[in-house]
Amino acid sequence: MSTAYTRLDKNQAAVLLVDHQTGLLSLVRDLDPDKFKNNVLALADLAKYFELPTILTTSFESGPNGPLVPELKEQFPDAPYIARPGQINAWDNEDFVAAVKATGRKQLIIAGVVTEVCVAFPALSAIEAGFEVFVITDASGTFNEITRHSAWDRMSSSGAQLMTWFGAACELHRDWRNDIEGLGALFSNHIPDYRNLINSYTTLTAGK
Amino acid sequence: MSTAYTRLDKNQAAVLLVDHQTGLLSLVRDLDPDKFKNNVLALADLAKYFELPTILTTSFESGPNGPLVPELKEQFPDAPYIARPGQINAWDNEDFVAAVKATGRKQLIIAGVVTEVCVAFPALSAIEAGFEVFVITDASGTFNEITRHSAWDRMSSSGAQLMTWFGAACELHRDWRNDIEGLGALFSNHIPDYRNLINSYTTLTAGK
Amino acid sequence: MSTAYTRLDKNQAAVLLVDHQTGLLSLVRDLDPDKFKNNVLALADLAKYFELPTILTTSFESGPNGPLVPELKEQFPDAPYIARPGQINAWDNEDFVAAVKATGRKQLIIAGVVTEVCVAFPALSAIEAGFEVFVITDASGTFNEITRHSAWDRMSSSGAQLMTWFGAACELHRDWRNDIEGLGALFSNHIPDYRNLINSYTTLTAGK
Amino acid sequence: MSTAYTRLDKNQAAVLLVDHQTGLLSLVRDLDPDKFKNNVLALADLAKYFELPTILTTSFESGPNGPLVPELKEQFPDAPYIARPGQINAWDNEDFVAAVKATGRKQLIIAGVVTEVCVAFPALSAIEAGFEVFVITDASGTFNEITRHSAWDRMSSSGAQLMTWFGAACELHRDWRNDIEGLGALFSNHIPDYRNLINSYTTLTAGK
Amino acid sequence: MSTAYTRLDKNQAAVLLVDHQTGLLSLVRDLDPDKFKNNVLALADLAKYFELPTILTTSFESGPNGPLVPELKEQFPDAPYIARPGQINAWDNEDFVAAVKATGRKQLIIAGVVTEVCVAFPALSAIEAGFEVFVITDASGTFNEITRHSAWDRMSSSGAQLMTWFGAACELHRDWRNDIEGLGALFSNHIPDYRNLINSYTTLTAGK
Amino acid sequence: MSTAYTRLDKNQAAVLLVDHQTGLLSLVRDLDPDKFKNNVLALADLAKYFELPTILTTSFESGPNGPLVPELKEQFPDAPYIARPGQINAWDNEDFVAAVKATGRKQLIIAGVVTEVCVAFPALSAIEAGFEVFVITDASGTFNEITRHSAWDRMSSSGAQLMTWFGAACELHRDWRNDIEGLGALFSNHIPDYRNLINSYTTLTAGK
Amino acid sequence: MSTAYTRLDKNQAAVLLVDHQTGLLSLVRDLDPDKFKNNVLALADLAKYFELPTILTTSFESGPNGPLVPELKEQFPDAPYIARPGQINAWDNEDFVAAVKATGRKQLIIAGVVTEVCVAFPALSAIEAGFEVFVITDASGTFNEITRHSAWDRMSSSGAQLMTWFGAACELHRDWRNDIEGLGALFSNHIPDYRNLINSYTTLTAGK
Amino acid sequence: MSTAYTRLDKNQAAVLLVDHQTGLLSLVRDLDPDKFKNNVLALADLAKYFELPTILTTSFESGPNGPLVPELKEQFPDAPYIARPGQINAWDNEDFVAAVKATGRKQLIIAGVVTEVCVAFPALSAIEAGFEVFVITDASGTFNEITRHSAWDRMSSSGAQLMTWFGAACELHRDWRNDIEGLGALFSNHIPDYRNLINSYTTLTAGK
Repeated sequence: MSTAYTRLDKNQAAVLLVDHQTGLLSLVRDLDPDKFKNNVLALADLAKYFELPTILTTSFESGPNGPLVPELKEQFPDAPYIARPGQINAWDNEDFVAAVKATGRKQLIIAGVVTEVCVAFPALSAIEAGFEVFVITDASGTFNEITRHSAWDRMSSSGAQLMTWFGAACELHRDWRNDIEGLGALFSNHIPDYRNLINSYTTLTAGK
Repeated sequence: MSTAYTRLDKNQAAVLLVDHQTGLLSLVRDLDPDKFKNNVLALADLAKYFELPTILTTSFESGPNGPLVPELKEQFPDAPYIARPGQINAWDNEDFVAAVKATGRKQLIIAGVVTEVCVAFPALSAIEAGFEVFVITDASGTFNEITRHSAWDRMSSSGAQLMTWFGAACELHRDWRNDIEGLGALFSNHIPDYRNLINSYTTLTAGK
Repeated sequence: MSTAYTRLDKNQAAVLLVDHQTGLLSLVRDLDPDKFKNNVLALADLAKYFELPTILTTSFESGPNGPLVPELKEQFPDAPYIARPGQINAWDNEDFVAAVKATGRKQLIIAGVVTEVCVAFPALSAIEAGFEVFVITDASGTFNEITRHSAWDRMSSSGAQLMTWFGAACELHRDWRNDIEGLGALFSNHIPDYRNLINSYTTLTAGK
Repeated sequence: MSTAYTRLDKNQAAVLLVDHQTGLLSLVRDLDPDKFKNNVLALADLAKYFELPTILTTSFESGPNGPLVPELKEQFPDAPYIARPGQINAWDNEDFVAAVKATGRKQLIIAGVVTEVCVAFPALSAIEAGFEVFVITDASGTFNEITRHSAWDRMSSSGAQLMTWFGAACELHRDWRNDIEGLGALFSNHIPDYRNLINSYTTLTAGK
Repeated sequence: MSTAYTRLDKNQAAVLLVDHQTGLLSLVRDLDPDKFKNNVLALADLAKYFELPTILTTSFESGPNGPLVPELKEQFPDAPYIARPGQINAWDNEDFVAAVKATGRKQLIIAGVVTEVCVAFPALSAIEAGFEVFVITDASGTFNEITRHSAWDRMSSSGAQLMTWFGAACELHRDWRNDIEGLGALFSNHIPDYRNLINSYTTLTAGK
Repeated sequence: MSTAYTRLDKNQAAVLLVDHQTGLLSLVRDLDPDKFKNNVLALADLAKYFELPTILTTSFESGPNGPLVPELKEQFPDAPYIARPGQINAWDNEDFVAAVKATGRKQLIIAGVVTEVCVAFPALSAIEAGFEVFVITDASGTFNEITRHSAWDRMSSSGAQLMTWFGAACELHRDWRNDIEGLGALFSNHIPDYRNLINSYTTLTAGK
Repeated sequence: MSTAYTRLDKNQAAVLLVDHQTGLLSLVRDLDPDKFKNNVLALADLAKYFELPTILTTSFESGPNGPLVPELKEQFPDAPYIARPGQINAWDNEDFVAAVKATGRKQLIIAGVVTEVCVAFPALSAIEAGFEVFVITDASGTFNEITRHSAWDRMSSSGAQLMTWFGAACELHRDWRNDIEGLGALFSNHIPDYRNLINSYTTLTAGK
Repeated sequence: MSTAYTRLDKNQAAVLLVDHQTGLLSLVRDLDPDKFKNNVLALADLAKYFELPTILTTSFESGPNGPLVPELKEQFPDAPYIARPGQINAWDNEDFVAAVKATGRKQLIIAGVVTEVCVAFPALSAIEAGFEVFVITDASGTFNEITRHSAWDRMSSSGAQLMTWFGAACELHRDWRNDIEGLGALFSNHIPDYRNLINSYTTLTAGK
C-alpha cells in the first residue's frame, strides 16, 4: 500500500517561468497583486538561491501582452530566454524543450500566467514526456477561482504535484544546517510575518 | 510514470450546448449573471471561430424552463437542434447521440445548465461510450458552490477534464500564428482586461 | 479509456437518513439553516416520491443530541427506525445493516449530520461491503468548510459519488414524461426560483 | 468494486505533533487563531483521552520559531520530544523515526504548522515507509487557502486520509457506551455548541 | 445628549409589501433564495399575527415582472391591493398613498424588491411626508452587496431605521406574556434553529 | 422630523464620467471586470436614453493611464471632453467646471475610476459648490473593499447620495408609461436576468 | 468643528450582559462559536478585572432559551441577576432599570444575544434615558451579517458607540503602568496571538 | 445645503505613525500581511515624498510588542520618536502632543496598529482638540472585520475622514504637473498594476 514520495531535489530540479509579462499580469485576479508579485519574486529568489537552472519564456512581448517583468530579466541575465514566435504551449516550441533538456534535470518546477494555459499546457506535456512536474500554485495566476480550480484538477489528475514557493524552498533545502542565514533571508524578504519574528528575536537577543 | 496528455484538437472536437434556456438560467447562482452570460457567449464564439460542429439541445422549451437563449439560436442557425421530449440526460435521447456520432468527432466539449444534471449526466454517459470529455466549467452554471463542487468531483473522478472557455480556446488554437487577429478578437470581445490591453497598445502604436 | 457510469436507479436505490436530530443540527454551520432544512426535507420528499426504501437512525435521542426532527418521523412512519444504543458508525449496528440488506437494494443514498462522522463512516463501511454509495452533500451538514472538504475528499477517494438532492432526483427520474406534475411539484416545493418560473408561466398561460 | 475502509483504531494509532511553536503560529492565517488554538488543544486532549502514544517535535526552538506552545509541553510531560537540530522534514531525523517505530503503531495521526511542510513532508515519508497516515486538517495551519489546498491535494493524491479532530475522536471511540462521560467532556470542552446542548439538557433534566 | 427612541408600536404600524413578484424575484441575488423566501413569508406572518394593516402593491403584473407571489395574495385576501399602472415609486401612485393614509398609522414597515428602488423610493417619500419608516432589510432583496449597501446608506441618511423581521416582531410584541404560544409559533415556523430548540425542549419536558 | 427627498430629475441632472481609461481600469479590483464593464456601459446608455448632458474627462491619456475606453468616446461624440493637463481632481480644472456649469444642471451624477480619487474629489468639490451629488457606486471602481468603503463613507458624510445605475434609471424615469420599450431595452441590454424574463415572456405570449 | 470624545472611564462604567443563554446561543451565526465564546468570556473577565458593576439578565430561562451560560453565573455570583418574566427589552423591566441606576454609573457597556433585539432595544432605551452607551459588538451575536449591520446602523444613528472588548479594555485601562501583569494576563488568556508573543518573549528573556 | 470640503494640504498636514511594532503586527488579520506591509511602507514613502512632518511613537518596545519595524526607523531617522512609557492613547502622552503641536500643522494623517485602539484613541482626542483628522484605513490593521468596522464607525461618527494612502497621495499632490516622475515612482513602487502599466508603456514608447 506504500506510495513513493517524489521529492524535490536541488540537484534534479529546474525552474520554468512562463509568460510573467506586464500586460498578461492584468488578467490575474485570483490573487491580490501585492501578494502575487511577492510570490513570483520569491520563486525567482528561490531559483537563484538554490542555483537551479532557470528558463524564461514569453509570448508576443512586442504586442499587448507586454514585456517580461523587468525584475525577472534582471534576476536571470544569463538564463535561456525563449521569446516564442507564436506557440501558446511553451512545450510546442523546440527551443524551449531543448533548453529544458539541456539542463539535464528531470524535475520541473513550473509557474506562470495564466495557470490553465501557460502553466497547465507545458506541465501536461512535460509529464507526458516523462518529467516529474511540480506546479508552484501561488506564483501562477489566472482569472478567478473557477479557472484556478479547473486547472488544478486537470494537472493533479495527470500527476502534477501542487506546491507553493515556501513548500518548494523547504523541500529543496532539506536541513537548516545547510545554510541558516541564506534560507532565513529568503523567508525574511518574502514573508512579513517571518521578518517580524526575526526582528523581534534579533532585538531581544542583541544585547545577550 | 508518464501520463498521456489528452489534448483538445480542433479537428477532433465537437461542442454540446445543453439547456441554456431563459427560465433555467434563473437557477444559476454560482456565477454572477454578467460573467456567466459572457462565458456562454464566449464559448459559442469559440465554437464558431474554430468551426467546431456544435449541437444544441433543450428540455421542455414550451414550459417554464423557457426557450433557448436567442443569442445561441442565432449563432448556430444550422446546427442540429434537439428539443428533447422528456429525457433529462441528453444522452438518453437517441437523436442527440446520433447527432453527436454524426460529427465523427471523438472529443466532446460540454457546457450547460445546471452543471450536476444537464452537464454531468451526458458527460458521464459520453465517457462510458468512449468519448474524451472536456467540461467547460465557467460556461456551466448551477445553484451554489456545493452543487458545483459535487458535480466537478463526480465528473473528474470518471475522467472528464475540467477546462474553461479561455483554456479551451488556447488549446484548440495551438499557435498564435495560425491567426492573430481572429483569436485576438475573440479575447477582446469577452475579456475586458484583454480589450483594455489591446486598446492601450493600439493607441500607443497608432502613430508609429 | 472508457469508465462505467454508475447511475442511480429508482429500483436499486435506498435512502439512509442518519442522525438528523434537533440537538445535533445546532452543530451544522457549513450551510445556512434555512437552506439546510429545505435540502433535508427535499431529500425526504424525494425518497417518498420515488418510493425508495428509507431507513432512519439516530444516536442517543434521549440525551443532548435531541430527538429526530419531527418532520422526518412524520414523513416515514413505517420506515425502519434504528435508535442506536451507542455505535457512532451506524454500520456497526447490526440492526441497521440488517435493515439495509433487507431492502435488497445495492445503491445507497446517504445523508446525515455531521458529514465527516455520521455520513462518512457508514459510507466507507458500505463501500467496503460492496454497495454503491451516493452521498447527498447538501442534505449533510457539519461544522465548517474544512471539515466538509476533508470528509468529501475521504469519501470520494474511496469511491463514493458526491451528489446533491436535485441531481439525485433528476437521475432517478430519467424522463420528465414519467410524471411531469410530480417532479414539478417536488421542485416547486423546494426551489423558490423554480416555483417562481412555474408561477409566472402558469399565470401567463392561464387564459390561453 | 469494493474498497477497503482503513479505519482509525485506538490500539494501532500514534499522534505526531509537529512544530506547534509560538513563533511559527504567527504564520497561520488559514484558520482564525481562536479556532486553531482550540483545535490543537482538542487534538492534544484526544491523544490523552485515548492514551495514544504521542510524539512531539520542534524546529529551532531557540530562534525566532519560538518554543513549543507551553500547553502541549504540559500535556505530554513524558512524551518523546525531538528538538530537531535542522531537518525540516521530521522524518529525516533518525530519532524521530525511531520514536515513531518504538510505538509499534502502524497508524499515524499527524498535525502541525505549516501544513505544506511540517505536516506534508513527514506524511509523505511515512506513507512511503508503509504507514497509514491520517492528517488532522483542522489542527494544521498554514498561510492561506492556496497553500492549504495545494498541500491537501498532494497528500491526498499519495493516499493520506484527510480528517478533523472531531472525526478522528469519533472513529477512535467507536461506541459511546465505551465511555459516555469522557467523550462528552472532550466535546464539551472544545465545541461550544455541544457544551450549550449539554448545559440546556442538564438544566432541564436536573430536577427529574 | 439624549436621543429619542422611535419604537415600533403595533397600534401605530402598517406594513407595505412592494413588488414581491415572481419575475422580479429572479433579480434578487444578495440573499439566498431559500432564506429570502422565508424572510418574506415571515414578515407576512408577522403582519398577520400583529393584525397590522397591510398594503400590497405591484408593478406591471401582466408583463415579465410576473404576478405577486401567490402566498402573499392568499395571506392578505382583503388587503388593499394597488396594481400600479406605471409609477415606479409606489408613493407616486395616489391610490397607494390614500391607502396608506387610510390606515391612520404613522409608522410604516416597508419591504420589497428591489431594495434601491421599490423600497428606497417610497421610503424616502414617506419620510418626507412625515411618516416614521422602518425598512425590513432581510425581506428586501436586490442585485448584489453594492446595490444593497448603497440603498441602505441612502435610506439611513434620510432617517429610515434599518430593521429585520425578527427585530420588528420582538419590538412589536414587547412582552412574551402577551402571548407566548403565538410568538413562539411565528419563530418556530421561520427560524429552524429556534424550532430545534423548541423540539428538544418539548421532548425533554414531555414526560415531566 | 421630516427629511426632504432630493430626487433625481431628468431635467436637472447631468452626468460626469471621470477617467474610465484603458490603463486605469486595470487598477479596478473591487468589481469583476465583466460586471464593471457592463455597469459603465449601462450608465452611458442611461445618459443617452434620458438625454442627460454628459461630460467626459481624462487624465494623461498619452501616458500609461491609457486612452478613454473607445465605447464611451463613440457613445458621446459631441460631449464636452476635457483631457486634463494634470489636475487630479477634475473640479480643479476650470474648463471642466465651466462645462458643468454650462449644462445649467444642479444635479450631478458622477462615476469614475478610481472611486476614492477621481469620483470622491470632484464629488466633494461639487457639494461644496452647492450641487446635489449622486454617486453611481457600481460604475465606479477601485482597488479593493477597504478603499471602496473608505471613499463611500467620506462622500456620504458630506451629503453625497450613493446610488447605482439601475436605481438612477428608475428614479429618472418615474413612470413606465413614459416609455415602456425604451426603458425595457436599457434593462434587457444590461441585466441578463431581466433579459431572460423578457425572452421567456415574449416567447410565451408570441402566439397570443 | 471639534467634537467631544466620550471616553470609557472605569469609574463611570457598568456592564450589562443580556441573554447569553445556552439555547439562544444556537441562533448566533455571524461569529464562529469558538471566537464568540472567547469574546463573551473576555468581556466578563474585563468586567471583573476593572471591577465594573455588572448586571446579568435573562429571558425565559426555564424554556427553550435555556439557562444563562454557567461560566457567567460563576463569574458574577453576587451581581444583580434579573430573570425577566417576559419583557423582551430589558429596559422595560423595572428591576433591571433600578439595578442599572443603583450602580450610579452613567456609561453602559452592553453586549448580548441577539444583537438587534437584546442589545439594541436596551441600548436605544438607555440613550433615550440619558446614558452613554457603548456596544461591545464582538461579544454580541446574531443570525447573520444583514441582521448585524442593520442593528449596528440603528444603534450608531442614535448615538451608541460601537466598540469591541479589546478596545474597551484599552480605553478603560488608560496606562499600562496601572498594572502590566493584570492587563497582560487578560490579553494572554483571550488573544492566542498575544499569548504567543508573550511566550516567545518570556522564553527568550528567561535566562537574561 | 453645501458642505465644506476639508481637503488634505501638504502645507497643513503631519503624519502620525502609531505602534507599527514587529510583535503587534502579528495581531493584524483584517489585511493580508503582504498587502499591509506594502501599504504601511507606501504611507511612509508618501510622508517622505511630500516632506510632511512625521512623528513615530511606540508602546513598550522592550516587551512582547517588539521594536518598531526597522524600515520605519530607517525612513525617518530624525523624526520625533516617542517611546511611550505606558500610555495606550498616544495623545495621553504629553511629549507626543507637544511634538504634534510643534509641527504647526492642523491636519493629522494617522495610521497604526491596532485600528480601534492605537488609531482611534488619538484620532478622537485630536478631533476633540480641534485638529482635522484623516485616518489611513489601509495602513491601519486590526484583528478582524468586526473590530475594523466598529472602529471606523466610531471615528467617522466623530468627524474623522476615512482615507487610504493612495487617495491621500492624490489629494496632497493636487496636480501631476507638480512632479510627474516623483508621484509615478511612488505609485510604481507600491502598486504592482500601476508598475505594469508603466513598464508596458515605457517599453512600447522606448524606440519612439
